[in-house]
Amino acid sequence: MTSLSQFNQQMQPLIDQTMQQVVLSHPLIDQYRGLKDMLSYHLGWDGAANRAEVQGKRIRPLLVLLTTAACSQSGWETALPAAAAVELLHNFSLIHDDIEDRSILRRGRETVWKKWGEALAINAGDALFSLAYNAISLLKQTCSPDVVLQSLEILNNTCIRLTGGQHLDISYENERYIGLDDYWLMIEGKTAALISACVSLGAVIGGADRYQQQQLAEFGRSLGIAFQIQDDWLGIWGNAAQTGKSTESDLLTGKKSLPIVFALQNKGKFAERWLSAPIQADEVAYLAGLLVEEGARQYTEEQAEQYTRQSLQSLINANIKNEAGQALQELALMLLKRSS
Amino acid sequence: MTSLSQFNQQMQPLIDQTMQQVVLSHPLIDQYRGLKDMLSYHLGWDGAANRAEVQGKRIRPLLVLLTTAACSQSGWETALPAAAAVELLHNFSLIHDDIEDRSILRRGRETVWKKWGEALAINAGDALFSLAYNAISLLKQTCSPDVVLQSLEILNNTCIRLTGGQHLDISYENERYIGLDDYWLMIEGKTAALISACVSLGAVIGGADRYQQQQLAEFGRSLGIAFQIQDDWLGIWGNAAQTGKSTESDLLTGKKSLPIVFALQNKGKFAERWLSAPIQADEVAYLAGLLVEEGARQYTEEQAEQYTRQSLQSLINANIKNEAGQALQELALMLLKRSS
Repeated sequence: MTSLSQFNQQMQPLIDQTMQQVVLSHPLIDQYRGLKDMLSYHLGWDGAANRAEVQGKRIRPLLVLLTTAACSQSGWETALPAAAAVELLHNFSLIHDDIEDRSILRRGRETVWKKWGEALAINAGDALFSLAYNAISLLKQTCSPDVVLQSLEILNNTCIRLTGGQHLDISYENERYIGLDDYWLMIEGKTAALISACVSLGAVIGGADRYQQQQLAEFGRSLGIAFQIQDDWLGIWGNAAQTGKSTESDLLTGKKSLPIVFALQNKGKFAERWLSAPIQADEVAYLAGLLVEEGARQYTEEQAEQYTRQSLQSLINANIKNEAGQALQELALMLLKRSS
Repeated sequence: MTSLSQFNQQMQPLIDQTMQQVVLSHPLIDQYRGLKDMLSYHLGWDGAANRAEVQGKRIRPLLVLLTTAACSQSGWETALPAAAAVELLHNFSLIHDDIEDRSILRRGRETVWKKWGEALAINAGDALFSLAYNAISLLKQTCSPDVVLQSLEILNNTCIRLTGGQHLDISYENERYIGLDDYWLMIEGKTAALISACVSLGAVIGGADRYQQQQLAEFGRSLGIAFQIQDDWLGIWGNAAQTGKSTESDLLTGKKSLPIVFALQNKGKFAERWLSAPIQADEVAYLAGLLVEEGARQYTEEQAEQYTRQSLQSLINANIKNEAGQALQELALMLLKRSS
């Protein structure tokens, strides 16, 4: 058994327990039964048969705890409230993203808005947002006030980046053309910010020194960007069944993913076709081929490679020499080599 | 000039300045111009001609600062970040409420979702929610870590009550009948929680002792409830033009306001008519008359009276003997006697 899977086995039950404590044991939540039911459903505590699938892999809280374990002598349990916070924050953003994107399925089940309507779903997302802050505030039971306030600041910063990135993502939907700069700014907010925050929270709570904190934050940021680029690659050349997503290619949904944005910048045949009218299903294979021809696949792979390298280098720079550091590296490699 | 208007004149410019600092001077916001524009619009910083109307009266931040001034020797300026936080939180909830209620007008202008669409509006609300927490976190520049953490907890608690109350409010829309218990639980969350939080924040930041804090929290809670009851009274017997709301009576919109809920519990003629089919415009005067006959107006007035008395008594119990305490009392009386 690898270090990563050992840690994962130890940590996941406590992550779940802490999340349940924050949400289901909140002293006020029983007053609002319907709201509690919605949150239980979205977080997979409603007795769903496919619980593991419904809850997702919970990689973000794992990143928090592994980083704490990597930096600290005194045990990762102190960071559990922060781990719960990032997973609750992630789940809040999923509830709202699903409304914004009109997605009807999430992790194999109906989305919250599809099941309860938009009004209640917007509000349930808000409740979860607030519960993420409740979780951070619980840190005061295990950490110094200074660490709690630093963690609060990390969460605040992350939320602005998340909502900023999401703003750009929605805005780009109505534009046929966006440039590479627009793309990087969007994914920095939408994906990299939260992953970077996980590592930063773990480092602050684990008592890392300033240099280590910087290196770890950079590790998280590059990891998040590489992760998103990989996702974009899969959206065009991955096996749709494997990705567990809709069978539609990013070429059909009009998503501004990296290969597409690169090719648009190139102003070749792909750009010409893309800008003229929406893509039809029978053109997908041809257009994916054009992207390869025009160097978009190669560019995407190079970028993924570069951010992966940068990420692993920052982890090495942080100079962590324990099992948890080993597990962090494993997790990064696993995320970057995934096929789904 | 009364104490209240003097304080108001001093405080409002600094409330606005602090809110602008949190939102417009956020180090990341210029990356997301479109989002900044949306928030500027909603908060009335977009050069609107009717700025005062568009921004609202900003009574909640005033309550924070007056309470701090009432408790503290050392000046209310320390509480400015908390004052900004409650007003930003209030405004976040307005953006989302307007989507949830499909309202197209807010303070005389198009609502954010009407202007930019739902997806961007949900997200802009989220950004404002997070900026409220950014504001609270700024308290660390003027207060001890302990006070910041207590303030964070007050904000967290308030958000759960707000979203819980809003959950009930939306859920009740689909029910013809709700009981008085349901009503009280809903307005406790929707209206009283935030007003009570304003006073609690002011008390904590002003360094009130535990007894004073309790009395002031009770002052805020009763004030909030009395305020909502007054609003419900106006929704049926107020002058629609004066209230600045739509010309429709609460009898037409189906809102579960106190007079209506009381009459439903009574199971008289009003209840019979209400439960049979939606109310038509030409029945409004007749039904308002039935409410009077069946004692719903008297009950509503008695409740308003009782909570007002309770509120003022708690303020007296808090034993504040300065100008700011005087202004707090004035503010409470003004809120409870308003005709709009």
